[in-house]
Amino acid sequence: MGRIIEITDVILRDAHQSLLATRMAMEDMVPACEDLDNAGYWSLECWGGATFDSCIRFLNEDPWERLRLFRKLLPKTRLQMLLRGQNLLGYRHYEDAVVERFVDKAAENGMDVFRVFDALNDLRNLKTAVAAVRKTEKHAQGTICYTVSPVHTIASFVEMAQRLRDLGVDSICVKDMAALLKPQPAFELIRGIKEACGEEMQVHLHTHATTGVTLVSLMKAIEAGCDIVDCAISSLALGSGHNPTEAVVEMLEGTGYETRLDKERLLKVKNHFAQIRNRYREFMSDFTGVDTEIFKSQIPGGMISNMENQLKGQGAGDRLQEVLVEVPKVRTDCGYPPLVTPSSQIVGTQAVFNVLMGKYKVLTGEFADLMLGYYGGTLGEKNPDVLARAEDHAKKPVITGRPADLLSPEWETLKTEALASGGAAGSDEDTLTYAMFPQVAAKFFKSRPEGPKNLGKDPVMKPPMLPVPAKPEEKTAVEGKVFRQTAPVTYAVTINGKEHKVRVAPGA
Amino acid sequence: MGRIIEITDVILRDAHQSLLATRMAMEDMVPACEDLDNAGYWSLECWGGATFDSCIRFLNEDPWERLRLFRKLLPKTRLQMLLRGQNLLGYRHYEDAVVERFVDKAAENGMDVFRVFDALNDLRNLKTAVAAVRKTEKHAQGTICYTVSPVHTIASFVEMAQRLRDLGVDSICVKDMAALLKPQPAFELIRGIKEACGEEMQVHLHTHATTGVTLVSLMKAIEAGCDIVDCAISSLALGSGHNPTEAVVEMLEGTGYETRLDKERLLKVKNHFAQIRNRYREFMSDFTGVDTEIFKSQIPGGMISNMENQLKGQGAGDRLQEVLVEVPKVRTDCGYPPLVTPSSQIVGTQAVFNVLMGKYKVLTGEFADLMLGYYGGTLGEKNPDVLARAEDHAKKPVITGRPADLLSPEWETLKTEALASGGAAGSDEDTLTYAMFPQVAAKFFKSRPEGPKNLGKDPVMKPPMLPVPAKPEEKTAVEGKVFRQTAPVTYAVTINGKEHKVRVAPGA
Repeated sequence: MGRIIEITDVILRDAHQSLLATRMAMEDMVPACEDLDNAGYWSLECWGGATFDSCIRFLNEDPWERLRLFRKLLPKTRLQMLLRGQNLLGYRHYEDAVVERFVDKAAENGMDVFRVFDALNDLRNLKTAVAAVRKTEKHAQGTICYTVSPVHTIASFVEMAQRLRDLGVDSICVKDMAALLKPQPAFELIRGIKEACGEEMQVHLHTHATTGVTLVSLMKAIEAGCDIVDCAISSLALGSGHNPTEAVVEMLEGTGYETRLDKERLLKVKNHFAQIRNRYREFMSDFTGVDTEIFKSQIPGGMISNMENQLKGQGAGDRLQEVLVEVPKVRTDCGYPPLVTPSSQIVGTQAVFNVLMGKYKVLTGEFADLMLGYYGGTLGEKNPDVLARAEDHAKKPVITGRPADLLSPEWETLKTEALASGGAAGSDEDTLTYAMFPQVAAKFFKSRPEGPKNLGKDPVMKPPMLPVPAKPEEKTAVEGKVFRQTAPVTYAVTINGKEHKVRVAPGA
Repeated sequence: MGRIIEITDVILRDAHQSLLATRMAMEDMVPACEDLDNAGYWSLECWGGATFDSCIRFLNEDPWERLRLFRKLLPKTRLQMLLRGQNLLGYRHYEDAVVERFVDKAAENGMDVFRVFDALNDLRNLKTAVAAVRKTEKHAQGTICYTVSPVHTIASFVEMAQRLRDLGVDSICVKDMAALLKPQPAFELIRGIKEACGEEMQVHLHTHATTGVTLVSLMKAIEAGCDIVDCAISSLALGSGHNPTEAVVEMLEGTGYETRLDKERLLKVKNHFAQIRNRYREFMSDFTGVDTEIFKSQIPGGMISNMENQLKGQGAGDRLQEVLVEVPKVRTDCGYPPLVTPSSQIVGTQAVFNVLMGKYKVLTGEFADLMLGYYGGTLGEKNPDVLARAEDHAKKPVITGRPADLLSPEWETLKTEALASGGAAGSDEDTLTYAMFPQVAAKFFKSRPEGPKNLGKDPVMKPPMLPVPAKPEEKTAVEGKVFRQTAPVTYAVTINGKEHKVRVAPGA
């Protein structure tokens, strides 16, 4: 038997985030859970900033309840989340005690694997979260955001991996959110990490499919010793999403590597999401091909549509090409940050401002903060002229310390505010929901009793997307329509043919 | 510098055959020709059975005129065609003199590379065509149709490669029309051919993207010594089409292999076909993902939609699953032919008959002929019970010789019939068009003076398929609308800024 390559499926989080604007309702994931849980995955990514946000903003669904239900429905498989280090699932730094509380509650509600990253690769923004995960004895995965720049070398990434190892992480993830990792660098990077951190250090590779080359990169990474790879079931894969799970299984045949995945289970999962996908056409990304221009601009697809909307809002929809040329220049000026939430938005918006109003004539507050170190440090040097302008604009000094060190304890304030917002149950979970998205949470707490919404449409009469039509749908594991009842609710969950009564309530 | 990997782009033939039902008008290809010709391709595939058929059936366009115009517009690049051996571009065997005449006229009108294949991999069906190509001193490419079965081994394919070499071919193509070639077999097969036929024998790999793994197979094939690979510009790639050209270029970075392609030219070609694609939405395949079920059923996507239509026509649209199970059984009974035109249609239709009317209760004439050897030999043994039934049905004996040996000279008859059909110009080209598709040709000859039709719609106001919007279109190389004029016509063709008058007429 060959070496086992472990697989994480991102179908419950990043796949629909990338392809269906994060709109998938829990109701549409539940029927696939039994097959997902028995398919033999190393983990299932199912929680992160965008799904949390979408739950309370669009779906009137409690994200903590979603987590608890995943835990019940996926008893055999690790649950995995993406955590933005000191930002948690929000867009600002939180004080350490909030970070610790968040990790504790996520672990308590069922999370197993915490993939912790920082948009700038500043390890000071990861260390509190990593330490908190270690304290819960859950799996702490340290993350390297992959990017390409004159200062980012294989050696610089390997050094970062060593520093993550020194923080005590259980595994190291290379996160290639923009699909920039080509096959040969993939081989060299994974090999470099293994040689520097020890062959026993688990390495996990996350890539997107956008540029069309990353399935080959997964192959090369596996040849270099990669232990775990991320992919998504084929009916919700490709485009700006991920490489198809089934393709990873098949490509390994005869190579001396193999997965533990059960193809019959995968087929059922695929058929389920092929039907679900059609219900969310309204939210579906138009981009189904590949785009190798990203190697030049380094601008992920999602960021381009954001910039396009910003430009159109200013009546300047025809100036996108100028902005695309401006983005790499702005990125150079601020020290080559990887472009991922929130740095991608900050750099993109500043590039739009530069094109519309003149070069650095107007700075956004966030861009000034990025220049001045309030998001953390960058690997590259900053442009001193732009730095001076940022100081002038923001009327505050450059900092070189850890940004979160500037924060005062805030837990009690957040708790009071959450309660005062009306509708919060007083649980730590509600306080954390409020802490992440205060305004949206306040609105959500009030509408929560109405129960979750499903934004998917009834299937339209279209030919199936896949040449092999789905088999008649399997009996739904959870009885229909329960998600339209008023929360808190008792679900009748059927696992392996046996019915269980599962009570899931906010703060339970 | 690394080893050069040569590239064939199939955008002008197989890409739109696979994704746009072969409907693309010459008018929509012309503006891309200057960039295609200067991009650095080894060859451009631009002619074959389906494009020839579509020209006269749907586009009122003379396929020979299309070839001559390609020759004018692509002076620097090899033109390549797909030739079905003794079937030429039709669905029956032709007598040797017709085969020779066809090859002569194709070469005379500008064809450089003849990829000659037989659906059953019976070399007796290739040898006349290969010899004819050699006589013209054009490039004769011998083809192995890749398939998977208990009798098809790496050794059996390598032995076929040696026999092709012995026929005197200039290069060997591995044709993976159903995307069944996984990375490890790709490596072993290409290495095997190189070792058996000599490292100097050029090996050319044609794959489709349908199963999602074949870009990795291209990488492994290149590592094994493959010289040339087929792909399609990214805006008309993937799904049941091909791997994107740009992805092949990018995946090789740093590997020690590289292409000669000019990325700026590729970008222009991509942007052009991104716009054209939108005009043919009506004909576009719905399948944009990947389907690994093909590894099990071995049924290419196009064949499934055919079978679905046949079943619906019989009011049995719900029995597709049974047919999908039946196809591999029928294939086993007839000796494991590769499934490609026409064997795919013959096996698929018989499977439909078996499901609807009982196992081999009714045989199609074509299936009986396949069983009895009238299409050539298969690698596997045939089921003797089914063979007996075929003899009984067809009232003719099993043959073991070369099928074309049964044919009498037919050129003069074809010529007379073509002229009698009305509208044929008496040229060899018209006789050959008639020989390929007699009824369709007769109709075409009459409507030909009306000039080519363009079935593409005006672009609908939809968001662009690709995240990076196309640049403003380059000036069209051929002045607009010329294709709506009455043939024969003089085209004003601008090459490298210099205008040439090009007269293209049937039989010219």
